[in-house]
Amino acid sequence: MIIDCHGHYTTAPPALEAWRKAQIAAIGDPSKTPSRASLSISDDEIRASLEGAQLKMQRERGTDVTIFSPRASAMAHHVGDASTSVEWTRLCNDLIRRVCKLYPDNFIGVCQLPQSPGVRPENCIPELERCVNELGFIGCNLNPDPSGGYWKEPPLTDRWWYPLYEKMVELDVPAMVHVSSSCNPCFHATGAHYINADTTAFMQFLTSDLFKDFPTLKFIIPHGGGAVPYHWGRYKGIAQDMKRPPFSELLLKNVYFDTCVYHRPGIELLLKVVPAENVLFASEMVGAVKGIDPDTGHHYDDTRRYVEPIDWISGADRAKIFEGNARRVFSRFGTRTPREVNATARSG
Amino acid sequence: MIIDCHGHYTTAPPALEAWRKAQIAAIGDPSKTPSRASLSISDDEIRASLEGAQLKMQRERGTDVTIFSPRASAMAHHVGDASTSVEWTRLCNDLIRRVCKLYPDNFIGVCQLPQSPGVRPENCIPELERCVNELGFIGCNLNPDPSGGYWKEPPLTDRWWYPLYEKMVELDVPAMVHVSSSCNPCFHATGAHYINADTTAFMQFLTSDLFKDFPTLKFIIPHGGGAVPYHWGRYKGIAQDMKRPPFSELLLKNVYFDTCVYHRPGIELLLKVVPAENVLFASEMVGAVKGIDPDTGHHYDDTRRYVEPIDWISGADRAKIFEGNARRVFSRFGTRTPREVNATARSG
Repeated sequence: MIIDCHGHYTTAPPALEAWRKAQIAAIGDPSKTPSRASLSISDDEIRASLEGAQLKMQRERGTDVTIFSPRASAMAHHVGDASTSVEWTRLCNDLIRRVCKLYPDNFIGVCQLPQSPGVRPENCIPELERCVNELGFIGCNLNPDPSGGYWKEPPLTDRWWYPLYEKMVELDVPAMVHVSSSCNPCFHATGAHYINADTTAFMQFLTSDLFKDFPTLKFIIPHGGGAVPYHWGRYKGIAQDMKRPPFSELLLKNVYFDTCVYHRPGIELLLKVVPAENVLFASEMVGAVKGIDPDTGHHYDDTRRYVEPIDWISGADRAKIFEGNARRVFSRFGTRTPREVNATARSG
Repeated sequence: MIIDCHGHYTTAPPALEAWRKAQIAAIGDPSKTPSRASLSISDDEIRASLEGAQLKMQRERGTDVTIFSPRASAMAHHVGDASTSVEWTRLCNDLIRRVCKLYPDNFIGVCQLPQSPGVRPENCIPELERCVNELGFIGCNLNPDPSGGYWKEPPLTDRWWYPLYEKMVELDVPAMVHVSSSCNPCFHATGAHYINADTTAFMQFLTSDLFKDFPTLKFIIPHGGGAVPYHWGRYKGIAQDMKRPPFSELLLKNVYFDTCVYHRPGIELLLKVVPAENVLFASEMVGAVKGIDPDTGHHYDDTRRYVEPIDWISGADRAKIFEGNARRVFSRFGTRTPREVNATARSG
């Protein structure tokens, strides 16, 4: 089985965006806020949004199941206040549940969290519990910068975040560290802000003892770990200069990278320097890059084509990257089939 | 000849830091501000600060000349106001000139700029002119984020920066895009802020028509270009999705990467994806990483050891990377010897 651990519902029916626009327009005039119930999307519309996109690509590329979450760039935690974020988040997560119910073999849910700048992370706990316990989701996306490019929250290693981590550990779910859109004109969202956040998070983990406090807490750093594998020597050297423990002890039991790197030399580098135990296959389709690479004739984000032909990784390692690591890191997936995971949902 | 295009005076005599501390302590009470003349550093102290460090490493590693600038992390443009920055900058640049005068075969100067948050970049022009016309410097370091991690300045492609670019073009000097220390607790300076800034700058260039307005403007993105070569496919794909011209046309006549990547797989990736014309040899010694890699027995930042054994780059390309590109990008270097460059200084 090939598990794509990083997919967002970027192709949701237009009614979703229209609802969000109405919600944003009503900021400052709560009487005009649309109710969640007012969103009307039929099952057929959901099917149509996926059949020509994610499902088609799964078939064409030979991947089996996508660990699927709401569109990351649309989380926009910086918009409105905590109640804006809660309403929008519930709506988006409910839609992911509907996707998983319609296609229980193809998608497993991961939730957006109702973060809001300056609002304590424990505010996210009820929605995380709802998604895991009621909707059958197996992880969450955690935004280290709800301000959208101004980085005003404490680092991920600060005790500020600990109540949420306690709940993640209790529920046995990992978080993908994933920012949203940037409202800072310096940062292009998918080209700079995403990659910077990945690099930033790794460096926060490297300099802290977070995983002494939470030995079973797990994070996936997406987009191939930002700049980290390319600068693996720099990070090893900085950690060594700071007398930090070796990576194996410091963070490799807790921090994982996905394979959303859109050319073969990048994937080769990733697999050369990062242990196979720490790499999870992913493509982020349909995501940041939609085009076809004229040099290969294939989609940039068809990452299976970069991993597959590498002949210096063992069959066992390949199996970990494509399947085993995702089942282990998303421990609620474990040995279940996707359908069995989705059958744990109690509602929605 | 092997030219290291990226070195900072990180080993300056302690009197420099003491002066800076006194300057910072006097913020708010200008009567206590130390004069530049009060800094007392002897030639012997300068010699001692270099002989056991940069010069020793040049000899041991077989590099010939370092394009040398003040310590980047100490620029700290966010401290104080524009006058604080001007005084500190002049002092640091004057010290670089003294280094170049003492060792005219080993160092060529590049200047710090007296940036300050929110202050228009034209404020840097007098110091840039002084350094180039009077001190014989051949480039400058430009900080895209004088706020130190909050990214409040407009992107580098905004017209805000144009007066400085006009002067750079007139003086025929490139800028290395280089942030300073971070006062944002989210960003470790050398592990996150530096690398993020590199990635951010590239993405700003990719999305703009800056080089249509300034066809001869040149930037070096240090630290191997941040995350960019590792995500080369992502950047190619994003540019393609945005209908931008191919990189060769869009920015490769204007944007260069150095080789400050501290492990062999990273350097191999860089040289695989970025044209040899766009790579300048550098080590940033003595810089972000000081230790010895236990896997190789050599300093992490001894980057010549990574470039040298790569046998699939031609001799001509190797010569460009080690020497030719630096002479071309720093066009005031050109065909001169380092001693001849330093002899262009009129004072200091």
